[in-house]
Amino acid sequence: MTSSLSDVQSPFPEPTTDEAMSGLTAAFDPGRFHDDAMDIVNRLTAYLGDRSVRGLDLIDPAVLLKAARGLMTPERQHVADFDPDRVNQIVNLYAETGIPVHSPGYMGRQFSGVVPLAGLIDLVSSVVNQPSSFYEAGQLPNVAERLMADELNRFIGWDRDRFAMVTTSGGSLANLTALLAARNRAFPQIWTRGAGDTPGPPAIAISEDAHYSVTRAAGVLGIGERQIIRLPADRTGRIRPDLAEPVLEEARERGLRPFCLVASAGTTSMGAFDPLEELADLARRHELWLHVDGAHGASLLLSDRHRDKLRGIEHADSLTWDAHKMLFMPAPCTLLFYRDKTAAHGAFKQRASYVFDEEPDIYSAYDSADKNFECTKRPMIMPLWTVWSVYGQALFAQKIDRLCEMTRQAHRMISAEPDFAVAHEPESNILCFRYLPDGMDPAAAHRLQLEIRNRIRGGGRFFISKVDIHGVAALRVVVMNHLIEADHLAMLIAEIRDIGQQVLRESATARHDQRNGSHS
Amino acid sequence: MTSSLSDVQSPFPEPTTDEAMSGLTAAFDPGRFHDDAMDIVNRLTAYLGDRSVRGLDLIDPAVLLKAARGLMTPERQHVADFDPDRVNQIVNLYAETGIPVHSPGYMGRQFSGVVPLAGLIDLVSSVVNQPSSFYEAGQLPNVAERLMADELNRFIGWDRDRFAMVTTSGGSLANLTALLAARNRAFPQIWTRGAGDTPGPPAIAISEDAHYSVTRAAGVLGIGERQIIRLPADRTGRIRPDLAEPVLEEARERGLRPFCLVASAGTTSMGAFDPLEELADLARRHELWLHVDGAHGASLLLSDRHRDKLRGIEHADSLTWDAHKMLFMPAPCTLLFYRDKTAAHGAFKQRASYVFDEEPDIYSAYDSADKNFECTKRPMIMPLWTVWSVYGQALFAQKIDRLCEMTRQAHRMISAEPDFAVAHEPESNILCFRYLPDGMDPAAAHRLQLEIRNRIRGGGRFFISKVDIHGVAALRVVVMNHLIEADHLAMLIAEIRDIGQQVLRESATARHDQRNGSHS
Repeated sequence: MTSSLSDVQSPFPEPTTDEAMSGLTAAFDPGRFHDDAMDIVNRLTAYLGDRSVRGLDLIDPAVLLKAARGLMTPERQHVADFDPDRVNQIVNLYAETGIPVHSPGYMGRQFSGVVPLAGLIDLVSSVVNQPSSFYEAGQLPNVAERLMADELNRFIGWDRDRFAMVTTSGGSLANLTALLAARNRAFPQIWTRGAGDTPGPPAIAISEDAHYSVTRAAGVLGIGERQIIRLPADRTGRIRPDLAEPVLEEARERGLRPFCLVASAGTTSMGAFDPLEELADLARRHELWLHVDGAHGASLLLSDRHRDKLRGIEHADSLTWDAHKMLFMPAPCTLLFYRDKTAAHGAFKQRASYVFDEEPDIYSAYDSADKNFECTKRPMIMPLWTVWSVYGQALFAQKIDRLCEMTRQAHRMISAEPDFAVAHEPESNILCFRYLPDGMDPAAAHRLQLEIRNRIRGGGRFFISKVDIHGVAALRVVVMNHLIEADHLAMLIAEIRDIGQQVLRESATARHDQRNGSHS
Repeated sequence: MTSSLSDVQSPFPEPTTDEAMSGLTAAFDPGRFHDDAMDIVNRLTAYLGDRSVRGLDLIDPAVLLKAARGLMTPERQHVADFDPDRVNQIVNLYAETGIPVHSPGYMGRQFSGVVPLAGLIDLVSSVVNQPSSFYEAGQLPNVAERLMADELNRFIGWDRDRFAMVTTSGGSLANLTALLAARNRAFPQIWTRGAGDTPGPPAIAISEDAHYSVTRAAGVLGIGERQIIRLPADRTGRIRPDLAEPVLEEARERGLRPFCLVASAGTTSMGAFDPLEELADLARRHELWLHVDGAHGASLLLSDRHRDKLRGIEHADSLTWDAHKMLFMPAPCTLLFYRDKTAAHGAFKQRASYVFDEEPDIYSAYDSADKNFECTKRPMIMPLWTVWSVYGQALFAQKIDRLCEMTRQAHRMISAEPDFAVAHEPESNILCFRYLPDGMDPAAAHRLQLEIRNRIRGGGRFFISKVDIHGVAALRVVVMNHLIEADHLAMLIAEIRDIGQQVLRESATARHDQRNGSHS
């Protein structure tokens, strides 16, 4: 035993077998579960009923660390001596310190106040614990994946006997998986021989405005970030196919071997939709795998009014679709679709006796471990499939329509304010803009937006985000809550103006003091 | 609009705004949540109280698919017309079709019947929805990660000011992340320039018995499966350091550039612990990153009786630790530890304005998005930290001790049966063995174990797994449930014998019929 380990030997006598079993019995007692559950459900019901306009109560981590440490059981305590109220204290702290995603004050990120039923199904998932990479371990989740894939593919429009879908833990991982499948199709030798002896450097073509997970994938997969071909975007963040073609050709002339084009259906910054039909043409001419990162925007397929944004999606090879964004599920729940199921199998190539059955049968046909990174995978489809089964597609379509409509409303309202400048027309539920009153120093615009964003966060009534557009920060609202009304938007606009004016006054005073040599 | 998309236009009139809002109001109603929750909690309380000895009810996927499809709302239904009992039907089907992880009949996999409180915290996580890759989005989860890391590192023994921990979605992803960090330390140019121009092929040294995620990582990272150096293991699955050294030297002579050695602390097949102290010496001499895949066995660090199995862990560079295995959490909950936090940052290298703050502050110091694959990440630490806070370390240590003791009991009982052969002495809670009665054809041993395993699964009373050891299938029990008693083991042994004898009789009859030309 090393000295570092001997330090942690328990300083009190080991419990007898009876003591140990009584502790285990208490912790696993169904009655205890029931009592804890009643308290938690009541707490969450109140949480969901709170419609007040609230933002984030941002806490110094050192302060929160101390509060949380105070809720931890002393080391020497016996299991059966636990304090039953400790659970409630933890749940309260948890609920109070989060971004209030169900409040109309929350307009800042792409995750949502979930459909409450989805949370309950997550409780069931956690208690019955059915990891879903293998049919045997999670029968209903694997069947639900098949059903949900069919439901959603009706909107994508791929051949239902040929397409495939896997769930995975977030959009970044889905993008990585698709790029791996694309790499393996174009350069099958890399899997076994490594990336050291390809005939030329494999390369990926992406938008200037693509999500960071895409450039990161080049680093992960041994392709190299330098082999990323950046396609020019217009000022609203859409790839320009006319300019993309010469960039691709130039890359080929430099010896690069592009194998994949990544388009966005809803960029993270402005929610811009790349022109998929034109990009599909381009990909076909250049023999590129077309991956569509629809993490945010694929859900618009469910809306009759907004489906058109994804025109051309049927020509893509793969599609990332986050149900934890515009399908209002607990995070993460990501669906990765492939037009051709053989491509899905191409992402990973191997066998392991204790997991992959040597003789494929009717059960193992539903396994997904050979198609996703995870071996143990949360049955993340269950909340989505259950909500879809109970409420139908209409719930999603109606909420999406409402959010997009309210974002257009925000655009109209902010455009009408003389001291605000919108950065684009919203294509979905994301709107970026700046507070830029007449006469202010343009060089100060960046700092001003950052300062406004942080002070709004600090004020605790609204939670919005910021994003850099062409190198200058902008304010960003993401309308994820159907309870947001025009009145809330008006309140937000007024708050931005108040704070913006205050910041400008303060910096004028600071400049004045500086000029006068004042240090007071 | 393409023809494939026009097919899915809703065939009924769009709802009015009022209708749409009333549907949304119903689905998001806190009272509705409360009612659903009461039903679900009662159902789960009964589920947890069922101590009957049960295995898996394996269902033909086509049959289950039909049953599940029958629970889906017809397409044309309005949201507000949902059937409130539909939820209960789905929850019942979900609970009934899973492996009953809380039953003493479950002895088959490494995921567990969770501590029930952990499931309740998952409910809170899903409702308050705080993705945890950024402090701002999940304040308490990020603080809880820090606290839990400190608690567990006391048992690893690393410098508390230098080590780091990130949570990630499963052990496979943790192994991949660690190998990526190791690759980037040894070959920093790959991230930007690609794997095409390293001075020699990067290579990874692993056990013959390593988890499939490790060989897969070589394919993913552009290293190539061919560059895997297989270190010989003894018959119980432990790497032999004396034989590993010449294999490594031979690989270097072939021009390979090994940069990482992966050891297992609990192999998946037999639960074998590689000799970490000797392997740490070897890694130091060869300048290799030592990664320990302790997905299954790292939890033994919490037990005074079993900690010794990981002697030498303090010399490792990184450690994968699955809390959804021997810490009894809902799957997945994986912790990846690094001895040196700069290594953790080395796995990924980049920035994105909308996520990574340009000016690090006290908040962003807690962010983990730059250290894990996920951008949106489940706050998976919360169930673990809460259970640890309420019940203390003792709960885990006592349960682990109980499981290991019962596995030794199984070893004693099976060793005493003349028609059984144990494959190894159990080092933790995994035991592999075969049913091999005297006089049976050794060539038939493999098929016999497979058949026994499947028929036991089909019988529905026990659920065990199988694994190939040296090319021949073995039966495998994983004792994850503290309710398992010697009586259950005796029942299982009797069932294996009955089924084994029956299979042998059937094949004798089949051979006899074949010899006599019978086709009846």
